[in-house]
Amino acid sequence: MSYEQILYSADEGIATITLNRPERLNAWTGVMEREVRDALAAATADDAVRVVILTGAGRGYCAGADMDNLGELSAAGSDGAPSRETGNREIGGIPGGLALRSDYHLRNTYYPTVPKPVIAAINGPCAGLGLVLALYCDMRFAADSAVFSTAFSRRGLIAEHGISWMLPRLVGFANAMDLLLSARKFDAAEAARIGLVNRVYPAASFLDEVRAYAGELATMVSPRSMRVIKAQLYEAQFQDLGEAVAVGDREMLESFSSADFREGVAHFVERRAPAFTGR
Amino acid sequence: MSYEQILYSADEGIATITLNRPERLNAWTGVMEREVRDALAAATADDAVRVVILTGAGRGYCAGADMDNLGELSAAGSDGAPSRETGNREIGGIPGGLALRSDYHLRNTYYPTVPKPVIAAINGPCAGLGLVLALYCDMRFAADSAVFSTAFSRRGLIAEHGISWMLPRLVGFANAMDLLLSARKFDAAEAARIGLVNRVYPAASFLDEVRAYAGELATMVSPRSMRVIKAQLYEAQFQDLGEAVAVGDREMLESFSSADFREGVAHFVERRAPAFTGR
Amino acid sequence: MSYEQILYSADEGIATITLNRPERLNAWTGVMEREVRDALAAATADDAVRVVILTGAGRGYCAGADMDNLGELSAAGSDGAPSRETGNREIGGIPGGLALRSDYHLRNTYYPTVPKPVIAAINGPCAGLGLVLALYCDMRFAADSAVFSTAFSRRGLIAEHGISWMLPRLVGFANAMDLLLSARKFDAAEAARIGLVNRVYPAASFLDEVRAYAGELATMVSPRSMRVIKAQLYEAQFQDLGEAVAVGDREMLESFSSADFREGVAHFVERRAPAFTGR
Repeated sequence: MSYEQILYSADEGIATITLNRPERLNAWTGVMEREVRDALAAATADDAVRVVILTGAGRGYCAGADMDNLGELSAAGSDGAPSRETGNREIGGIPGGLALRSDYHLRNTYYPTVPKPVIAAINGPCAGLGLVLALYCDMRFAADSAVFSTAFSRRGLIAEHGISWMLPRLVGFANAMDLLLSARKFDAAEAARIGLVNRVYPAASFLDEVRAYAGELATMVSPRSMRVIKAQLYEAQFQDLGEAVAVGDREMLESFSSADFREGVAHFVERRAPAFTGR
Repeated sequence: MSYEQILYSADEGIATITLNRPERLNAWTGVMEREVRDALAAATADDAVRVVILTGAGRGYCAGADMDNLGELSAAGSDGAPSRETGNREIGGIPGGLALRSDYHLRNTYYPTVPKPVIAAINGPCAGLGLVLALYCDMRFAADSAVFSTAFSRRGLIAEHGISWMLPRLVGFANAMDLLLSARKFDAAEAARIGLVNRVYPAASFLDEVRAYAGELATMVSPRSMRVIKAQLYEAQFQDLGEAVAVGDREMLESFSSADFREGVAHFVERRAPAFTGR
Repeated sequence: MSYEQILYSADEGIATITLNRPERLNAWTGVMEREVRDALAAATADDAVRVVILTGAGRGYCAGADMDNLGELSAAGSDGAPSRETGNREIGGIPGGLALRSDYHLRNTYYPTVPKPVIAAINGPCAGLGLVLALYCDMRFAADSAVFSTAFSRRGLIAEHGISWMLPRLVGFANAMDLLLSARKFDAAEAARIGLVNRVYPAASFLDEVRAYAGELATMVSPRSMRVIKAQLYEAQFQDLGEAVAVGDREMLESFSSADFREGVAHFVERRAPAFTGR
């Protein structure tokens, strides 16, 4: 599969998707949207892939929707189309993806259906739609050179694509209000302090550090456990505690008859590295 | 309009409401409640006002319900009346305010209906009802001399006026439990660390710093965007992700035909300061 | 009452429950489960007890479900039985406990029904089920020597007993994802930074510091207020803001006729230490 606006590679259990319009700070386009979706589907289908990293080429991560598409914007939406219109493909469908509730199957909210951890590796400017999409990744790591902005209120726009719902769950209600009302720029240290990114690494060694974390997930952790736990966390956002406990009880019993549970106990007892299969 | 227990002024796009019983650390009264409501309505009606600051005169912010009204308290409520009794005015009504769901139209919870950012500038002691009301402001900035307490449990009282609901959304569940059970005093640095206040400034330059932030909202950001985004954030607290996305899609399309969106793009392309009108 | 796997003591208004299998890092067993439940019931019934501390003997807090019960595990659940099967006792029943909704009456989720603050004093390693149960305590204090892990994904297990629901409410969604997917070890400083523990004390003075905090609750705060506020906070997790305000209004009016409210005002006016009775 060859792509026009992204790069895709997979090795050592890690798929890397790189937004590749560096001369535009990887501004988001309709082509990029389709290609990222295809790449996430490819990573989902590849049994050798256990973790996905999403990053940007050059000095930027994603500067938001491409401002050159402004005519298109005012006609159809700030990134080309409303959330529920996805042309000839299933809305938010990732073949083999997690069967989450419909909230996670919309045009821009479907990343949680990828049954493997998706890590946003934010290497530089991250704004507007670029920030929104990073929020639907499971974790966010930032280079210390990254800068952030919600951007919308300085363009006369509003809180797009569910950021009004997702951002307060990450940074608390008051920080979400500050960042969305002011659209001020903020740096990686602040992003980490308020919970928007999980951690910050020096720019010089950034991708190596992210790959080291991803590598630990790929080698030390059960892929089956990650798949189930990821679904549990997203679904629990809409459940009562009792429902979450019931799901946990059911999944716990199922895990006992899995190969990964046998291996999880065996490698611990035998004091050796695990060899999980994901089954 | 002249007030008895508050001060009101408006200039450079910023309305300032000052609780003005400094000899009582601005302890809250029924008169003050009515006057703050009137002042918020005036700030809402004044098109020149884009941001509202709420602060206290003298060395205090608001020490809670006035303890001199204790007889009144035990008769009718710790601040004179139950939440739903508001005399001869519409409950929580701000003419021209945001049409939020009824949760935000109660006696003390109506601040979110003000269609402009409301910033609590906490210059000194902030306790009990004074703290509760600060939570319904959109953001909280604190002087480094500010001190805080929920106060209730040391008076034999309980978690009043929805603080049991609002506080965990700002500081997480465990911090909310600590602060409400113990009613211990805590300082501005801790308030910032746990997310209760957005930031802390030195007491000497406090109001200048708050006005600088407010001034950036008043000049660099679309008033229309702030109005819509504020409503989105409060409503999203009660929505599923899919509902929040649908609201965002609808509001995004509406924003494309707004004057503020045209100006938001034009000033960016022309590399000049924006001149938003709020339309 | 004598116990086999825990210690119980009560003095100065503080009940201390100590998990007492130090040679196993206090790994959790069915016996321990029954004994902790009995001890929490005893603390609930004892009017002299105002606060409960839960800690571990020796260098550990609780290392999770005892791995020696692995056969039992794969037969019946990672700690011996599914959540809703509790043998011959009422599910999650604490006589005299808070009448919270059913979510808080399950096998491992019932700690919130104890009508007094329950503080987890995490003195050492805290993992798996040991971590889950600590989350259902009202607050968590950690020694600087404590280490934490969710553990499940490295055993091929899943997010058990409602941790998928509770953890994001304490540490935000992204930190919960990191900790549950990776099952990496993390230290007390990180636990405090992300909101998992309320504060960290040096190991040398750890229990003294926790007892100092508990002692302040036991002497300076109304037991009646703590009982009501604790219930308000847990119930508000499932309420709209309007419902939480209505509960607060009702409880506020009831508190006005309580002895603790009279004492709360009297000791303040008379500038003396309070003598609350909990009535």
